[in-house]
Amino acid sequence: MDPQELLSLCKRRGFLWPAYDIYGGLAGLYDYGPLGAALKKNIEEHWRELYVLGEGFHEISCPIIAPEAVFKASGHTDAFSDMYVECTKCGETFRADHLAAGLCEAPAALDEKQLGRLLKENKVKCPSCGGELTDPKRFNLMFKTSVGAGKGKVAYLRPETAQGMFVNFSQVYRFGREKLPVGAVQIGRSFRNEISPRQGLIRLREFSMMEAELFLHPDRKTWPRYKDVKGQTLDLVPNKGKSMKMTLEDAVKAKTIANEALAYFIWLTYKFAIDVGLDASKLRFRQHLEKEMAHYAADCWDLEADIGYGWTELVGIADRGSYDVQAHMSHSGADLTAFERFDEPMEVDQQVARPNFGALGPLFKGRAKQVAEALAKLPISSLLGKDKAVVEVDGEKLTIPSSCYEVVAKTEKVSGRKLVPHVIEPSYGVDRILYSVLDHAYVKKDDYVTLRLKGLVAPVKAGVFPLMARDGLDVIATDIHDSLTRVGLVAYYDDSGSIGRRYARMDEIGTPCCVTVDYDTKVDGTVTVRERDTAAQVRIPKERIPEAIGLLLSGAELKSIVALR
Amino acid sequence: MDPQELLSLCKRRGFLWPAYDIYGGLAGLYDYGPLGAALKKNIEEHWRELYVLGEGFHEISCPIIAPEAVFKASGHTDAFSDMYVECTKCGETFRADHLAAGLCEAPAALDEKQLGRLLKENKVKCPSCGGELTDPKRFNLMFKTSVGAGKGKVAYLRPETAQGMFVNFSQVYRFGREKLPVGAVQIGRSFRNEISPRQGLIRLREFSMMEAELFLHPDRKTWPRYKDVKGQTLDLVPNKGKSMKMTLEDAVKAKTIANEALAYFIWLTYKFAIDVGLDASKLRFRQHLEKEMAHYAADCWDLEADIGYGWTELVGIADRGSYDVQAHMSHSGADLTAFERFDEPMEVDQQVARPNFGALGPLFKGRAKQVAEALAKLPISSLLGKDKAVVEVDGEKLTIPSSCYEVVAKTEKVSGRKLVPHVIEPSYGVDRILYSVLDHAYVKKDDYVTLRLKGLVAPVKAGVFPLMARDGLDVIATDIHDSLTRVGLVAYYDDSGSIGRRYARMDEIGTPCCVTVDYDTKVDGTVTVRERDTAAQVRIPKERIPEAIGLLLSGAELKSIVALR
Repeated sequence: MDPQELLSLCKRRGFLWPAYDIYGGLAGLYDYGPLGAALKKNIEEHWRELYVLGEGFHEISCPIIAPEAVFKASGHTDAFSDMYVECTKCGETFRADHLAAGLCEAPAALDEKQLGRLLKENKVKCPSCGGELTDPKRFNLMFKTSVGAGKGKVAYLRPETAQGMFVNFSQVYRFGREKLPVGAVQIGRSFRNEISPRQGLIRLREFSMMEAELFLHPDRKTWPRYKDVKGQTLDLVPNKGKSMKMTLEDAVKAKTIANEALAYFIWLTYKFAIDVGLDASKLRFRQHLEKEMAHYAADCWDLEADIGYGWTELVGIADRGSYDVQAHMSHSGADLTAFERFDEPMEVDQQVARPNFGALGPLFKGRAKQVAEALAKLPISSLLGKDKAVVEVDGEKLTIPSSCYEVVAKTEKVSGRKLVPHVIEPSYGVDRILYSVLDHAYVKKDDYVTLRLKGLVAPVKAGVFPLMARDGLDVIATDIHDSLTRVGLVAYYDDSGSIGRRYARMDEIGTPCCVTVDYDTKVDGTVTVRERDTAAQVRIPKERIPEAIGLLLSGAELKSIVALR
Repeated sequence: MDPQELLSLCKRRGFLWPAYDIYGGLAGLYDYGPLGAALKKNIEEHWRELYVLGEGFHEISCPIIAPEAVFKASGHTDAFSDMYVECTKCGETFRADHLAAGLCEAPAALDEKQLGRLLKENKVKCPSCGGELTDPKRFNLMFKTSVGAGKGKVAYLRPETAQGMFVNFSQVYRFGREKLPVGAVQIGRSFRNEISPRQGLIRLREFSMMEAELFLHPDRKTWPRYKDVKGQTLDLVPNKGKSMKMTLEDAVKAKTIANEALAYFIWLTYKFAIDVGLDASKLRFRQHLEKEMAHYAADCWDLEADIGYGWTELVGIADRGSYDVQAHMSHSGADLTAFERFDEPMEVDQQVARPNFGALGPLFKGRAKQVAEALAKLPISSLLGKDKAVVEVDGEKLTIPSSCYEVVAKTEKVSGRKLVPHVIEPSYGVDRILYSVLDHAYVKKDDYVTLRLKGLVAPVKAGVFPLMARDGLDVIATDIHDSLTRVGLVAYYDDSGSIGRRYARMDEIGTPCCVTVDYDTKVDGTVTVRERDTAAQVRIPKERIPEAIGLLLSGAELKSIVALR
């Protein structure tokens, strides 16, 4: 589906508007008009229903602004960047690796120098004006700002919602009454200062994400409902071997998918995609290539959709191991472990930190004992192989050189153990999903456009028309419109133009059905209900309209509506 | 209600967490935990129901990042600032006017010099360490950032959601099929770089707003449903005369409230406040003092709530005249007018721009004619008293000196006229509303805390308990829990501790009712339903639980539940 044609419909009918248009716009920013905002809300609501009501995840909502420390820990300040070149003539900036597309196999993998050389050798000029380009420079993709008056503190706009959940692991764990697995979700805006955003909703500088973080016991990566879906088949594109339809169970057994929990959330993602109206024949799950995968990731799959821009990533579902929680533990010094209580106390050989008071005493004087106690509480993983440890005593952070303690083996009777949870992260790009839903729903036949949006997500559920805007037909139609909105069904009243044109207006925005009030309505109280995709019509008593619309929205066929007569 | 006590409950039970706590936090930022996020969502959903479904406003969603031009037009780059002083010893910053509280009548009205003198004369020192303070400086409260690589473009995080609706007036007007009145709403995050945010949720650096912009014909400031509510009385604190209960109709007639539309949205704000559970006896509408009111505002009322921090503004409802739309018209050169079609064409004396081709020709050569046509399309208000005009020709913005045209009177037969809409803006602070809802709901009796949250907003609708976590009682209770979540009722399953402790846990988070499964349930299929505020209990068949909870949530009394037996 040609993106220009779809975006033009979106703009004309109030799904999307280029943001700040009256001021010349700002690339990578869109407004959601009334229909787009409603469609987006419906998609988000369904996701929330699946994850929060359905699977029991806890929804939280964190600030967009975050202090630098968070992104030092997550690695974003160091590694979240792209390379750009600037035209020395017109000043426009471009992604350096995009300009090198086709000149080598993986331009993004080159460093600044190599990429600069490649562009020079191939005499690449400014695509806009033909001017000379600067050498490539790295550019961090986080939006930077400063918090507070005076010098202020460096802060960033979050590039994903995930970090807010990682830093709150202990809070979420406590809220879930200290059991694993426990899941958090967050829906909200994220920001990436893209160098040259194009492709409409696919690459935005400000976008919405729906992310889930499932915190698991490292040895128990499954999910209670896995057993209910393991026989389901999916189109898988693994990074080794050939693409095929496989059951989840076979994929886990063959180690194509790393574990049952990951398989479950891949399946839930598929269910979500179908529910919101994506076309199953244009979806696939592609496993990240080994070189694409983060070094800490145990496995990662993308849900990709075939849309006007080609195969496009909509969702990523990754097993991130203990990387994120561990990183925040190390950087903050906070204890972000879960506690596994054994059924019975156990004798265990374990490694413990034995304080060396000979070194601690001179360094920390009267506080040496408190320091030793704080050391003992640290997870051993934050000591092993490190040359220092950080503890908090009386609210003060103290750095303890490794000469002050020794990690020794000890047999102890313990009631349980601390463990750093692993994380499975399904991460959904809302704007891309919304765009793909529109792309897959778009049907054009002899210049007549219909958006075949599912009832669940359609921004308007029903058009309500009086045949004529007089003789009381308008009063009856207004009553019907109001009674629908009172029960929460978004309806659109339209009394202008021919009925055919009114149907066309509704078809073009994906309204699943229309109700027409005519002169017979005044006689026998019946109205015409028309179904969008078949254009089939049926007369029913007007009292049964909400019921009929409810049936149509949930995907019922027209014959069940006929039965309402 | 003591804020510390309430915030402590909020933190302990998962309503609110200080953000980035493991990194020492960042003042003015809070996380919403699962209960807070749900409460917030419920409040927002109800507002949406009133404004979008109920009144037919169009919900849109604009980016948080906005280019500088928007805030030059709105006045925020110039005038959205506070004064601060910095401690020369500890470096902490403070609102200068706050430190001068009590030293003169209105410290915020002083300029930097006057305020500096006042602080010096009174020997005001750093409240934290007693150090010397710098002279007051102005500090713009918008968070600044930069968009794009290279030099980048200056941009700000929006300090309110309103501007996104003003710049989109033409889009909203077109979507509403070019009729006035037409309304837009937006719910979303806004940002103010407060100098020293304190007071928990009341003064945040990142917060949520729900704003409505009603665009009206300047001469028809009313609203269809005004007639249905004009007899209602409200507690009004006008800026002249004494506070009193008045009907809306009397208030409008006495010109206490400027017009019927403003009165209607004051009333709708009251209805919303009561619906979400604010205590009517702790609410008042206070009219802005004349010196508080913006120079362009025709009238402005705040809904204030009496909470632990004193009387606090939750909502502002202002008649902003044509100020905002006019400002964006002047700065962008875009035509943001509405067109009023007369019933019949009229002979009117009107002012028109007569092009002076003698001056236009030399300046614009072959485009002089296009420029003249574009000039003719500009609203005359953007020419009067200006020394230049800006028009767009072939996508290019051209500045036309006033020597190129003359504004002359002309009698013409016209089918209608352009007009700049007036705006009535109800602007709601979500976080403050949420906090006030908790404050008003908090009841403590002999150390037993109950949050008397209304069913509409309560984050958990029902607790579900098996008397014992065995003998199949747990299976029955789990079934009940699952069947409730399937119909969208958030339920909380709890099988640990005595029933009394489980009730207490639910009372403390405001759950309206609890369902207990005991051994009789196995015999006769009945369960105990307990109502939070009365602690009254009734046994009903378990099949009727959803119905009973529905009744309780909508405020029914227990006797109607008894009737379900």
